[in-house]
Amino acid sequence: MDVADVAKMLIDQGKTVSVAEACTCGLVGYMLGTVPGSSQYFPGGVVAYTGGLKQKILGVPDAVIEAHGTVSEEVAKAMAKGVRELTGTDFAVSTTGVTGPAGGHSGLPIGTFWIGLSVKDGVDSAVEINVGSDRDGNKHGAAQAAIGILGRHLQGA
Amino acid sequence: MDVADVAKMLIDQGKTVSVAEACTCGLVGYMLGTVPGSSQYFPGGVVAYTGGLKQKILGVPDAVIEAHGTVSEEVAKAMAKGVRELTGTDFAVSTTGVTGPAGGHSGLPIGTFWIGLSVKDGVDSAVEINVGSDRDGNKHGAAQAAIGILGRHLQGA
Repeated sequence: MDVADVAKMLIDQGKTVSVAEACTCGLVGYMLGTVPGSSQYFPGGVVAYTGGLKQKILGVPDAVIEAHGTVSEEVAKAMAKGVRELTGTDFAVSTTGVTGPAGGHSGLPIGTFWIGLSVKDGVDSAVEINVGSDRDGNKHGAAQAAIGILGRHLQGA
Repeated sequence: MDVADVAKMLIDQGKTVSVAEACTCGLVGYMLGTVPGSSQYFPGGVVAYTGGLKQKILGVPDAVIEAHGTVSEEVAKAMAKGVRELTGTDFAVSTTGVTGPAGGHSGLPIGTFWIGLSVKDGVDSAVEINVGSDRDGNKHGAAQAAIGILGRHLQGA
């Protein structure tokens, strides 16, 4: 789904979205901001890649990271919920994954991402994808997936 | 200056950098994260585009925004300082500007950006640039400028 279509739905529905990005490092936010008028639906978000920022800024509990690893359903959900509450948006999307070329500490295949979606007065959810590309391709695939997951929610809501 | 050169200097000097981005929306973070091994020097940052996030997350005082406008030397410096203190990095860069196509409320020409640099145990500074491109070109120009300003500081320090 094109980001312009998602932007139109957000504007038409009067809704806002924030982002919590680990290894996409800001690409989801950049993509959401490419559409003129993006300030209507995208106030911002947090890049929480390393250094304990998931815990410190987004409030992801240490225990959740220790129990499940940073690339997990639970962390993706907690990141999305954390940034939605921090920013006060209607929705939030999150990304956490293994971009490569190094495999990380998770043992998960390169290209594996969990994409989180948090919905105000709704449920927090996350889906696993494997993009199967190189470092930059994996990031673009994950960012596109995050925008698509939000778009499908907006279509179906 | 290429981001890979800046990344090498950061790694060689054992330093870290965070980002505070307004209308680049995450592009500086994404660019910093393109280099394999970026987790060594880039823990993350904040996209504070609208909705009061500059104040709420980065601690930019309302009075500074009211006195100078969001696209200003003072706000760029305060954003960089705020994210450096929040993340605990050695450096932080910030961007605030007018990407277009709408001119914003500032009366500044489209393509005008202030790029902030905050240095741990050092000075906070900001420089004004005008990229003079379209919306996406302005963002890329501003992001490249932010990385270049950091790189020149690392070279000269």
